[in-house]
Amino acid sequence: MKIVLIGGQGTIGKKVAAALSPRHELIIAGRNSGDIQVDITVAASIENMFRQLKTVDACICTAGTGYYGDFQTMQQHHMMGGIEGKLMGQVNLVLIGKQYLTEGGSFTLTSGIAAEHPAKNGASVAMINGAVNSFVLAAAQELKKDQRINAVSPGLVEDSWERYGALFPGYNLVPMQKLVNAYLLSVEGAVDGKIIKVYS
Amino acid sequence: MKIVLIGGQGTIGKKVAAALSPRHELIIAGRNSGDIQVDITVAASIENMFRQLKTVDACICTAGTGYYGDFQTMQQHHMMGGIEGKLMGQVNLVLIGKQYLTEGGSFTLTSGIAAEHPAKNGASVAMINGAVNSFVLAAAQELKKDQRINAVSPGLVEDSWERYGALFPGYNLVPMQKLVNAYLLSVEGAVDGKIIKVYS
Repeated sequence: MKIVLIGGQGTIGKKVAAALSPRHELIIAGRNSGDIQVDITVAASIENMFRQLKTVDACICTAGTGYYGDFQTMQQHHMMGGIEGKLMGQVNLVLIGKQYLTEGGSFTLTSGIAAEHPAKNGASVAMINGAVNSFVLAAAQELKKDQRINAVSPGLVEDSWERYGALFPGYNLVPMQKLVNAYLLSVEGAVDGKIIKVYS
Repeated sequence: MKIVLIGGQGTIGKKVAAALSPRHELIIAGRNSGDIQVDITVAASIENMFRQLKTVDACICTAGTGYYGDFQTMQQHHMMGGIEGKLMGQVNLVLIGKQYLTEGGSFTLTSGIAAEHPAKNGASVAMINGAVNSFVLAAAQELKKDQRINAVSPGLVEDSWERYGALFPGYNLVPMQKLVNAYLLSVEGAVDGKIIKVYS
């Protein structure tokens, strides 16, 4: 398969890339690095990426973060980065990319455990992840040409523990291999319209 | 209780208002009508409304709609109205309003069945509703002064059938009284951090 992986140099993306690259034509997309450049917050940049790729058999997004911070002082502007990136960036990958995705191709987006089990200070991220999940349920019904779409919803992953563990007291660590398997299930399997939860 | 109801002249809001007004001090907020004016897409307008109200014991929002339309031609701009209104409008009611909400007061937001069971053409609305639900789960953990927050998630309600029924083939009609009860449960009951689903 010809696969584009947006965010392939991030914590999760690196491991997904390592698992896919031996048996697929993997193209890493990043804002400033990788094989091809894309800024998912800009629709025209997404369009430009897909135009260069011409067609892909799978599009995976592991890019996009959200704001963690004190709820008492949280304001709309803290939330806009997540809305423009992890939410509308991923939505636009689908709305725009479906024209470039081959018959039977798949989208795999990334949401997160906060949609159901938000951590303290995580209201913004919860909101984004919940939105991504529900969008995937709807998009799965609408895609044509046997195209599929799923969301992988990770908990606190092993490789993030050092940087982010303190934000998630009481959250079980997710082995990277289990998380990678969720992406493989979506890309190489047949599941469609699923929120693939990998919480522990 | 002193209750502000945003969207009190809409399909759902009218019935909620009728149920609450006999036993509470009910203030209807609307963009161009009602007892007090607010445009929930503008944070400053929300701030201004709460400043005028000084304090409220409950804040209910039944305002905010979303875009229904063909997924094949859906673009980001179709989705922005829902993001600015039903999503960020409701989020801002909480982020701003919590300072004006009394001890033990409550927020009641409105999401919808599309979060879990999106109808055809409903990807934008699904996304918004999923976001509202997850935000409520997070905000419930964060609010101080025993303040509560819930989301009411309506299915296709009786009073919308004539206008919107054709958009929802196979959806059960929700009796208005059952939906009104969900708002009463949130405002007058003790539930907190719940997605109160009224799907049939």
